Amino acid sequence: MARWQPNASERLVVAALELFEERGYENTTVIEIAERAGLTKSTFFRHFPDKREVLFGGGAMTGLLVDGIDAAPTGAGPLEAVAHALDMIGAEVFTCDRREFGARRSAVIAANPELREREALKGLGLTASMIDALERRGVPDPTSRVAAELGALAWKIAYERWTDTANDDTFGELARRTLAEVRAAGAMC
Amino acid sequence: MARWQPNASERLVVAALELFEERGYENTTVIEIAERAGLTKSTFFRHFPDKREVLFGGGAMTGLLVDGIDAAPTGAGPLEAVAHALDMIGAEVFTCDRREFGARRSAVIAANPELREREALKGLGLTASMIDALERRGVPDPTSRVAAELGALAWKIAYERWTDTANDDTFGELARRTLAEVRAAGAMC
Repeated sequence: MARWQPNASERLVVAALELFEERGYENTTVIEIAERAGLTKSTFFRHFPDKREVLFGGGAMTGLLVDGIDAAPTGAGPLEAVAHALDMIGAEVFTCDRREFGARRSAVIAANPELREREALKGLGLTASMIDALERRGVPDPTSRVAAELGALAWKIAYERWTDTANDDTFGELARRTLAEVRAAGAMC
Repeated sequence: MARWQPNASERLVVAALELFEERGYENTTVIEIAERAGLTKSTFFRHFPDKREVLFGGGAMTGLLVDGIDAAPTGAGPLEAVAHALDMIGAEVFTCDRREFGARRSAVIAANPELREREALKGLGLTASMIDALERRGVPDPTSRVAAELGALAWKIAYERWTDTANDDTFGELARRTLAEVRAAGAMC
């Protein structure tokens, strides 16, 4: 009991996505997700606080984003620091072998209002974390808030483009291109 | 029964705010709000879908914002169209006599996670409506999305400044100044 399970988190995510696709998010229970993954309900709750959270990585993404901004070169401007963080996320999380999974995940979220709401709130949490990380780099308010909003928007658009399977670019490439587009659009507002 | 009640909506909002301040949001029921306003529960539900919604105007703000963007002069750029809408909202909703109420409302929302979540989701809905309104004016994607994010951020900052009672400027003045700051900050990202 309570033994360490290799890749338990990833197995739970894959099992949840399969079940949400097969029978819908509403008709899937945490117990069913755990069973499909060959794990127990209590293992599920050691990794995720509730069923909604299973598709949202339990906060790991925020940590990566903040670490990436912190680790950006000293002279980098605010959106360049965000680009540095998105490069790291592209290298470590949104890798090519996960693109098809990302597309399926997006489709499941789009089909359910509760998941769309959770995704929207997660996005706001990420934006707030970016503001804090940028301010630690000395970016003043309101530039920190503007940069975080533009960074969050670029991330969202880049993720949409990345999960479009007609597309062969890496997430990092797409994110840098999208950030440049967003910056240019900002100058035209 | 079901008679028309003058200012029923406004009376319900004032009663709700008073009760939330006195005993907390969680400890207030819809029946209590209706009673304090001298109205019935069914009148409450003709105006608002649930208790959380009573502080968020039931969608009226979205209509005003969209109308304001639609009515902006033809040659106005995207953020100028948003400024036009915020002028109208300042003239019709966020008037000087409502500033103290706005400050109390903000304090109640800040104290409750459920209300903070609803406010955040309302903000996302407003942003989505702004994108649609800007695209009807011929603003292309992603400029429409960037302008809507910047406009929503300027609105939020201007509202914070307006409800700071140390401040004597009108909402419209604050919104225009904040939009200019946000635009300038965007150019420095």
